[in-house]
Amino acid sequence: MNLIDGKKISLELQETIAAEVKKLKADGFKTPHLAAILVGSDGGSETYVASKIAACERVGFNSTLIRHPEYVTKEKLLQSIHELNNNPDVDGFIVQLPLPRHINEHKVIESILPTKDVDGFHPMNIGRMVLNLPCYVSATPYGIVHLLDKYKVETAGKHCVVIGRSHIVGSPLSILLAKNTPLGNCTVTLCHSKTVDLKSHTLKADILICALGSPDFVTADMVKDGVVIIDVGTTRVESTETKSGYKLKGDVKFDEVAPKCSLITPVPGGVGPMTIASLLRNTLLAAKKEMY
Amino acid sequence: MNLIDGKKISLELQETIAAEVKKLKADGFKTPHLAAILVGSDGGSETYVASKIAACERVGFNSTLIRHPEYVTKEKLLQSIHELNNNPDVDGFIVQLPLPRHINEHKVIESILPTKDVDGFHPMNIGRMVLNLPCYVSATPYGIVHLLDKYKVETAGKHCVVIGRSHIVGSPLSILLAKNTPLGNCTVTLCHSKTVDLKSHTLKADILICALGSPDFVTADMVKDGVVIIDVGTTRVESTETKSGYKLKGDVKFDEVAPKCSLITPVPGGVGPMTIASLLRNTLLAAKKEMY
Repeated sequence: MNLIDGKKISLELQETIAAEVKKLKADGFKTPHLAAILVGSDGGSETYVASKIAACERVGFNSTLIRHPEYVTKEKLLQSIHELNNNPDVDGFIVQLPLPRHINEHKVIESILPTKDVDGFHPMNIGRMVLNLPCYVSATPYGIVHLLDKYKVETAGKHCVVIGRSHIVGSPLSILLAKNTPLGNCTVTLCHSKTVDLKSHTLKADILICALGSPDFVTADMVKDGVVIIDVGTTRVESTETKSGYKLKGDVKFDEVAPKCSLITPVPGGVGPMTIASLLRNTLLAAKKEMY
Repeated sequence: MNLIDGKKISLELQETIAAEVKKLKADGFKTPHLAAILVGSDGGSETYVASKIAACERVGFNSTLIRHPEYVTKEKLLQSIHELNNNPDVDGFIVQLPLPRHINEHKVIESILPTKDVDGFHPMNIGRMVLNLPCYVSATPYGIVHLLDKYKVETAGKHCVVIGRSHIVGSPLSILLAKNTPLGNCTVTLCHSKTVDLKSHTLKADILICALGSPDFVTADMVKDGVVIIDVGTTRVESTETKSGYKLKGDVKFDEVAPKCSLITPVPGGVGPMTIASLLRNTLLAAKKEMY
């Protein structure tokens, strides 16, 4: 069994991006610029946005954080998005989710220019992904495909089973891996809460993607020897082992499953670290206008 | 074994649409209006467009056919689309595919307003489909889901195997059937040209969608007893049995496979007749502004 080191691959990707930014600047091009809109002051969202801003600094991007109070009106938020859409210095921007309940997330996302939607959540980017056209792929699916690529996991003709059909992981990933592309060409089975006899499917998987958010759900009897497992689950569970009083748990019962795997991502340190690197990559692509 | 009668279901759907149009008109609403752009004079395209126009008349829609010569410039074609986008009397329109080689189909499709894209080919509509948001679903995938519904085929928890990942059938259908909706909730496996040991997958299918375009490809040894089969294939093969000198063949070796099926679509007369009814339905939804 070998571990997939997401932290290492993420840092390597960030170093590649930093080197390219340095070259762009030396060649007289503008500095890539990512903006983030943060509504309210949820602890999780504050942390995520802060780490995105810090990552921008690390790779040499400019960044802007725009804050709105929890009670911001939809109109005011849309105005803010409109300004970023029309600001030629901003190459891409994100609206940190979740938004307060009084605001329709889909309306907000659709108001972002697809050309600046570096989160890849706009229907236009998702549709282009389905059609194999240039687009921003969202962070977690891209991060997973990148990990498989870096660890030279053959995907063509392999049977990939995805558990979980969320809009941000399972569903787009099942589409990406089935496509006729060098990092795709898997036979993909998408399983979910309505799947009957899940184990009969997971036992067939050459590559198993666990993205259901249920700690220790996947057990050793559910997988075959030599499987490659990507564990996307990151559930906070209480723990007496850590100072914070909690730890992150994946969807896979790691201790008993890992020995059967040829490759597996740990939690934390697997898929998680890839998401920020993926966002930076999309922003660089936006600055270079490579997608639209 | 029972046949799925696509012709009958299509006529029923068209009658429902006609009744609703009659009511809309009686209530003083405008008449739904579908426009079609036809470039060149390919025999197949001429036939398809003519049957769409005829179907409009049957259900009481207005229709407009706009013709361009084979050598039309991209600019001229886009101008034509721009005019339909801005014509408030036109509820929806289609650009008949394929287009001549000198014109980029994707650029043309993306220039159609998503709100008028009743073919459901625009990335915005495909992305919205993935996200379970209101959208125009393209004709063949919608037609198939409608057939399964009308024949009361239970989909929730069933294993559906789709052979073929085309942008207009296999790929969108695999997405639709896996979604958390009353007509979805299948466990879906998407197979294609790179799939290894296809038979091991098809033998597991409760519902088998054949959309690869290879006559007689699916044989009796590839399916289990009681399977529901939707045959999307329509390949013209030479024939001495017909006056025209050819006949349409499905992807399924019907004579030997049909006895094992609980339900199966014939070719012709299965999926084919559904496509025009689906297009009319999207146009009615556009006229009623139910999607955007």
